[in-house]
Amino acid sequence: MADAPVFQRLCIIGLGLIGSSLARLARERGDIAATVVACDTGPGVAARLRELGIADVVETDAARAVQGCDGVILCVPVGTFAAVMRQIAPHLAPGAVLTDSGSTKGSVLRDLVPLLPAGVHLVPGHPMAGTEHSGPDAGFATLFQGRYVILTPPSGTDAGAVAKVAAMWERAGAMLETMDATTHDKVVAIVSHLPHLIAFTICSTADDLAQETQEQVLKFAASGFRDFTRIAASDVNMWRDIFLNNRPALLEMLARFSEDAQALGRAVRWGEAGFIEDRIHRGQKVRRGLIAINQA
Amino acid sequence: MADAPVFQRLCIIGLGLIGSSLARLARERGDIAATVVACDTGPGVAARLRELGIADVVETDAARAVQGCDGVILCVPVGTFAAVMRQIAPHLAPGAVLTDSGSTKGSVLRDLVPLLPAGVHLVPGHPMAGTEHSGPDAGFATLFQGRYVILTPPSGTDAGAVAKVAAMWERAGAMLETMDATTHDKVVAIVSHLPHLIAFTICSTADDLAQETQEQVLKFAASGFRDFTRIAASDVNMWRDIFLNNRPALLEMLARFSEDAQALGRAVRWGEAGFIEDRIHRGQKVRRGLIAINQA
Repeated sequence: MADAPVFQRLCIIGLGLIGSSLARLARERGDIAATVVACDTGPGVAARLRELGIADVVETDAARAVQGCDGVILCVPVGTFAAVMRQIAPHLAPGAVLTDSGSTKGSVLRDLVPLLPAGVHLVPGHPMAGTEHSGPDAGFATLFQGRYVILTPPSGTDAGAVAKVAAMWERAGAMLETMDATTHDKVVAIVSHLPHLIAFTICSTADDLAQETQEQVLKFAASGFRDFTRIAASDVNMWRDIFLNNRPALLEMLARFSEDAQALGRAVRWGEAGFIEDRIHRGQKVRRGLIAINQA
Repeated sequence: MADAPVFQRLCIIGLGLIGSSLARLARERGDIAATVVACDTGPGVAARLRELGIADVVETDAARAVQGCDGVILCVPVGTFAAVMRQIAPHLAPGAVLTDSGSTKGSVLRDLVPLLPAGVHLVPGHPMAGTEHSGPDAGFATLFQGRYVILTPPSGTDAGAVAKVAAMWERAGAMLETMDATTHDKVVAIVSHLPHLIAFTICSTADDLAQETQEQVLKFAASGFRDFTRIAASDVNMWRDIFLNNRPALLEMLARFSEDAQALGRAVRWGEAGFIEDRIHRGQKVRRGLIAINQA
C-alpha cells in the first residue's frame, strides 16, 4: 500500500522544465499529492498541459489556482516572484506550505517574506537539476533522481512544514541539504552562476577577436572552449533573472575569481613556474575530488 | 599500389600522445615514412617503445637519432625546444625538413630559427588534437582524423618542404590551415589556453571558498563547474610550458576577457537587463555556430 500523499492538493505555479517534471512525477507516484493543480500564464501553455494530461486541474489564474491548496510551489523565473506573490498571498490557505524551486534564495526571502500571511509556512528550496531544454514538454519524472535539493528555511520555520517539503523531494529521489540562504547563494554563485557568466563572456571575447583577425577563430574551438560554450546556450530570461537576483554573491565571486585570474596572469608574465604549477595541481586535485564523489 | 612515402627516414623526437600516435600511424600506413626513428629520453620510454614495436629504430640520443633523416618532428613540450635544437642542429642533414607539434608557434620560431643550419627547412605545425592522457601508451593511429593542423611557415619557406609536411598530415586524416605564427598564437590563446587558465583558476577560487564557508562547495558542482574542471585535469609540465611560451597572446586574451567580464559584472551591479540579455544571446549565437560547423 502506498504511503499517504505529502499534500492533499499541490499547486505548481510555472510548468517549465522543473514544474512539469514535478507534475509528471506527482501524477505517476500518487504519494506526493492527491491532487495536482498546474498554473501557467504562458501563451498556449495551459492548452498544452491539458493535452499532456500531467495535472488534475489546469489554471491560468494564480489566485484561483492556490485556493484550498495545502502545498504551493513556485517554479517561475525568480524575477517574477514578487508579482506572483502579490497575486496569491491573499488566497493562500492558513496552514499551507509555500515552497519554490528558485536558483537564488536571498531574493526569494526578500520577495516573499513581507507578503507572507500569518499561518502560512515558507520553506524555500532549490532543486539542483536541469537540462539545456525548457518548457512543459521538456520535463520528465526522473529529473530529480540522485540530484541535490537545498532547503533554506529561515530560523524558526515550522518543523512540520520543512518535513513535508523534504518528504516531497525525497520521494522525487533527491538528496536533501539544508543551509542558510546567504551560504546557498555563495555556493551556487561559484559552482553555477559564475561559470555561466564566464561562458557568456568568453563567447563574446572570441567573437570580437574573430571580427578583428578575420580568422574563423571558432573553427578551431578546442576542447576547453567547447566545454565552455555548452553552458552558454542557456535560457535568456532565466539567466538574466538569476544574475539580477544574486547580485552580491555573484559580484563577490567574480571579484574573487578575477583576483585569482590576475594572480595567475602575473605569474605567467613574470615566469613564475612554481606558482603556475601549483595552480594546475590544485585544478587536478579539485577534479579528482569530483570524480571521488561521483560528481564529475 | 601505395603512394611513395613522404619521407625516407622520419625522426620523431618525443613519443608522448602526439609523437606515439604519429609513429603508430606511419608504421600502419607506410606512405608517411619508409623508416620511422623514435627518440625519447624519458625514463623507461625507449624500452617501452621497443616493446610496443611502433618504430623501426629507437634512440635515446637526439643527435644520433636525426642523422641521415630527411624529416624531423619535435613532439616534446615547447619549453624544451631550445635545448633539443642545440643538440640536433649540427646533425641535421642538408635539405631536411624540420617540423614540430608545439601548441605555441611564436616561441618555436624564437627557439629554432637562430640555430637553423643553412639548407634545412623549418615548417612549424600544430596538430589540434589531444586527449587527457599522455605518454607512449596513450597514442593511437586515428588521433588526427578530422582534426585541424595549423602550419605557420615563415614567409619565404621552401614550398616543397611545406608540401611535404602538409602531405604527412593529410595522410593522417587531418585538415590543413596556414596562418602566421602571431595569429595562430592569438587563436589558440582564446580557444584553448585562456579556457585552461580560467579552469585552473576557478578550481582554486572554489577550493578557497570551501575552506572559508566550511561547506562542501564542490559537492554541489553544477553542470557549469563540472565542465570547467574536466579540462583542469591536464598535464602540469605541458601546460606550464604552454603558458610560459605564449605569454603575450595569453596575457592579451586574459586582459580582453577580464574587461568583458568586468563589463558584464558592472551590468549585473547596475541592473542593466538589456546588456545582460545581449551577452547571453551572443553566447547562444556562438554555440549555434559551433553546432553548425560540427565542432560542438
